[in-house]
Amino acid sequence: MTPAPGSFTAEEYAARLVRTQAAMAKRGLSALLLTTPADIAYYSGFLTRFWESPTRPWYLILPAAGYPVAVIPLIGQTLMARTWVADIRCWQAPDLADEGITLLADTLREIAQGIGGHNRKIGVPMGHESHLRMPLNDWERLKCATPEMSFESDDGIVSQQRMIKSPSEIAHIRTTCAIAARAFARVPEIARAGVPLDQVFRRFQMLCLEEDADWVAYLAGAAARGGYGDVISPADERELTPGDVLMLDTGLVRNGYFCDFDRNYSVGPPSDTVASAYQTLIEAAEAGFHAARPGATAADLFHAMHGVVGGPMDGGRFGHGVGLQLTEGCSLIPQDQTMLATGMVLALEPVITLPDGQIMVHEENIVIGVDGAQWLSPRAPRMIPVLEG
Amino acid sequence: MTPAPGSFTAEEYAARLVRTQAAMAKRGLSALLLTTPADIAYYSGFLTRFWESPTRPWYLILPAAGYPVAVIPLIGQTLMARTWVADIRCWQAPDLADEGITLLADTLREIAQGIGGHNRKIGVPMGHESHLRMPLNDWERLKCATPEMSFESDDGIVSQQRMIKSPSEIAHIRTTCAIAARAFARVPEIARAGVPLDQVFRRFQMLCLEEDADWVAYLAGAAARGGYGDVISPADERELTPGDVLMLDTGLVRNGYFCDFDRNYSVGPPSDTVASAYQTLIEAAEAGFHAARPGATAADLFHAMHGVVGGPMDGGRFGHGVGLQLTEGCSLIPQDQTMLATGMVLALEPVITLPDGQIMVHEENIVIGVDGAQWLSPRAPRMIPVLEG
Repeated sequence: MTPAPGSFTAEEYAARLVRTQAAMAKRGLSALLLTTPADIAYYSGFLTRFWESPTRPWYLILPAAGYPVAVIPLIGQTLMARTWVADIRCWQAPDLADEGITLLADTLREIAQGIGGHNRKIGVPMGHESHLRMPLNDWERLKCATPEMSFESDDGIVSQQRMIKSPSEIAHIRTTCAIAARAFARVPEIARAGVPLDQVFRRFQMLCLEEDADWVAYLAGAAARGGYGDVISPADERELTPGDVLMLDTGLVRNGYFCDFDRNYSVGPPSDTVASAYQTLIEAAEAGFHAARPGATAADLFHAMHGVVGGPMDGGRFGHGVGLQLTEGCSLIPQDQTMLATGMVLALEPVITLPDGQIMVHEENIVIGVDGAQWLSPRAPRMIPVLEG
Repeated sequence: MTPAPGSFTAEEYAARLVRTQAAMAKRGLSALLLTTPADIAYYSGFLTRFWESPTRPWYLILPAAGYPVAVIPLIGQTLMARTWVADIRCWQAPDLADEGITLLADTLREIAQGIGGHNRKIGVPMGHESHLRMPLNDWERLKCATPEMSFESDDGIVSQQRMIKSPSEIAHIRTTCAIAARAFARVPEIARAGVPLDQVFRRFQMLCLEEDADWVAYLAGAAARGGYGDVISPADERELTPGDVLMLDTGLVRNGYFCDFDRNYSVGPPSDTVASAYQTLIEAAEAGFHAARPGATAADLFHAMHGVVGGPMDGGRFGHGVGLQLTEGCSLIPQDQTMLATGMVLALEPVITLPDGQIMVHEENIVIGVDGAQWLSPRAPRMIPVLEG
């Protein structure tokens, strides 16, 4: 059987498992129960866009010792069998009477008995930015079906493991960043005064695909005179107009891995305010880059960038981790004391507030190396690129 | 302020709210708490691809009487203010110490007090194919912060409301289906013997965008000799080969609404087995279509189609609802006794198993009208289309 597209070697998954089991042992966990696309992909190599359908829950169990066990709908058996996961148990989903819960409970019980001892603690990601991808009714039913077990927070184990990327993961993200970079370089082909913003969004996604994205999971952006007010609204039909700043921010996916960076463009010549704000953003990202080394904290990077741009923080943060998800792991905010370590991939995302209240956002991706950071996205030009006005 | 792109009139949202409040009153709920993109979009018109970032939770509360209240990260304030929702309460997210939970608890308390009475039941979608999009730790914290309230299942209220589409929603889905139909009609431009499947996937997504998709949330498919074995694996680099059946299944999005249908193609002339299986699938979908009228059940549609194709059911179902999600609402399986009603939009998705164990899947979208069903996807040709071999 050919390996699942985008998956790594069994050795890579085994290394992730062993590191995770060491962390589980410290907390006395019998198993970890995983339910979300990124967590399951990380430990199995199971990549599919079928997650878009909310109907079926999927489960991957990491035992305290031994190999992962998949408890999944029958429709996924063939693909899961192409991963390194050998123990695959399926039910015929959808099943309105029992959506895999009996099978899951039996499997957890078997695993816990195999581990031995009196401990029956099952770790589940419950912390910041996690969610449980199964119905709450089924969650309660699972707990009732396994009264001898206790389900508790994984204490961030999974998030912490995923935060440090292996060389293979970094290579994947570098590839994804290069695809986005090629698409951004071609924006002058599709965007100029008179083109509606929603058409720019469509054409940009086409460029990403033409440049080899598997799919374009995320595209945000904005265009407005002298900056923009909002970076999460869908595009509307308003035409680009001289004096606009156009921003496009993409999280495209290649082999399951995201990039997340943006580019700004001036439609026609920029005002002095915009030109200067843009340069300040570039300098802020550089300040973040130079502060980024093992031992520095997420908060340190925030302060390095905020020291350059100043101003309020309505957007919420100046960056975050990137990997199997568009955003994951730490946040570049004053509160976040996460210690940076070799292998972390980050988005540096300083925001500047202009005198009239508009904002501009700049974003690059970096990886933390032994001696400091490296750029994964090719750095944006030092002067704001100008589109035909 | 211009309305949020893709949103409906305030009257449409008010009608949804009033119907939902009537259902809430029967169950004695003080409020509904919603956390997922589709549920929040349905009652607010808040559409954004920013949901791709898992970092921030978002909350919409429907009180037993009165208007919805949004409790959301500050980054979403501008967009939410462009919807019909007037009461918007924001916190500066991410906040590692309190990710909106105090604000949410205070808001729920205020709403329950405003409703009056001793009842403090908060409904939350907890049933089949639902999930809670917030960390479990925060869920426990919310319950601790509001000991006077009980959180319980919404008993399917939200899912049932969303299942019946308004004329405006049906018009949106019809538009989305027409976009996919135009893209499918152009597949011969991009797929022929010698083209790798992953390039077909990329080029097909580009066609969808060129034909006016906002984005391509879902693309699955397969190509293999005389049928395929699996419909959820990512595309690999294998080249199309004469004798292959190529299947592409897309859930693209326009104005927030999905279509979900597929098309099959034969690379070069089809074998008799493939040609005949294809015609059987077309007949099965027609049998489903003719069985689809108000008062029939989801199970009836399954049996109508299964009566034509026969065979095992490894894929799990013969169709499902479609709307703000790729799949939602009922499942066309023997277990599902959901009564069809005017305004339901469904995917009919019969599967046929070929003598060698390969499968073929055909899918169309329909809407239930007063006197029977209407096609939303233009029906596939009666003979399998042939690509250059």
